Amino acid sequence: MRELFELRGREPELLFSPYCWRVRLALAHKGLDFVGRPLRFTDKAELAFSGQQLVPVLRDGETVVHDSLAILRYLDERYPERPLIGDELAASRLLLIERFAQFSLPLALLRLLVLRIHASLDPVDQAYFRQSREQRFGMSLEEFADAGAGREQFEQALKPLEALLARQPWLDGAAPGGADFLIGGFFFWAWCLGEQPWAEDSAVGVWFRRLLAGYEAHKGPVYRAVRP
Amino acid sequence: MRELFELRGREPELLFSPYCWRVRLALAHKGLDFVGRPLRFTDKAELAFSGQQLVPVLRDGETVVHDSLAILRYLDERYPERPLIGDELAASRLLLIERFAQFSLPLALLRLLVLRIHASLDPVDQAYFRQSREQRFGMSLEEFADAGAGREQFEQALKPLEALLARQPWLDGAAPGGADFLIGGFFFWAWCLGEQPWAEDSAVGVWFRRLLAGYEAHKGPVYRAVRP
Repeated sequence: MRELFELRGREPELLFSPYCWRVRLALAHKGLDFVGRPLRFTDKAELAFSGQQLVPVLRDGETVVHDSLAILRYLDERYPERPLIGDELAASRLLLIERFAQFSLPLALLRLLVLRIHASLDPVDQAYFRQSREQRFGMSLEEFADAGAGREQFEQALKPLEALLARQPWLDGAAPGGADFLIGGFFFWAWCLGEQPWAEDSAVGVWFRRLLAGYEAHKGPVYRAVRP
Repeated sequence: MRELFELRGREPELLFSPYCWRVRLALAHKGLDFVGRPLRFTDKAELAFSGQQLVPVLRDGETVVHDSLAILRYLDERYPERPLIGDELAASRLLLIERFAQFSLPLALLRLLVLRIHASLDPVDQAYFRQSREQRFGMSLEEFADAGAGREQFEQALKPLEALLARQPWLDGAAPGGADFLIGGFFFWAWCLGEQPWAEDSAVGVWFRRLLAGYEAHKGPVYRAVRP
């Protein structure tokens, strides 16, 4: 049995962690079945078997792997069909792309999404989320949140993606690959929480629809929080 | 004969175009000899043979190629040893890296460098540079210049590079490749103009020294404008 331990909101169907989405997208891409094990932030004890406390964790028979990039690497080693990472040079460039994305996309999105995340959590998670994030930000969630500034910053961060996707269908070229799933996870984060801070008819918007359709063809409709 | 048409300052030895440096670094990496043809901004007529007006232009026997990325691709096709680009997947990822770099590094550097560039040009180029840039920026060079803000923005933009170079010697992994030269060009731009807006002992600083040493081993010392 293959199990993906991931983050859930109030409803167990509401999956929004961008790093967990990377793994869902990669598993669907390879056509690998799995059972989702949605956990709350405060269900960390259930991850003790993995020797650490963060989702995503993949348990594949006897093998346990955590960290989204490590899971993608594991999947390529164990299931080489439809590779995600590529050769050594492609792998190094994927790491750099991941770093560029990590330093530009999530902070912008978080300013847009943070209150929506809080509102979508199980009540038992809300106090944990508020306390841990307010400590990290050094201010209250309400002070940190700035949907307008987040949108604007995200729009800036989309420019390199928009420029590339205007000339090719996938970030990884003619077919989807690791770069599409690593970056796509951030888009599913916003999407599942009921936001879409990109234009439907932009190159990025068309790419996201393609990514969503590919995933849904394998796994069925994605559960999306209703916009309040 | 192999000739590289590139941009020069007041002194013909002062080469500072980041896009021309990409090609110099790539040629040195492949161990290919060439003659530099340094041009002023206002020497555009000398590029007429290339059918367009921008440096870098490489003339390699009968072949003429312009645009830094196109020149790197040409070099790999014609001289496959020590490849720059890699396979199709690696090539697509290099394009995305180039876009991420292009949208984060040069604008920050330009705010830091613009007055230094102006001061380093041949007098016949200064009026052209001022007029064309002031039209692009919608303000005077002096209003656009902001060394402090440029440094700060550049420091932010270095973070993904710093994170990767803390774990591997080159952006392209164990050996230098296209990503190192495409991004390295921006560092030579600042360096040749007498600036170094990165810490000498940072991972990025160590990487730049390595890049510089590799280049100078082939081509001799890089001419650097004296700091005013």
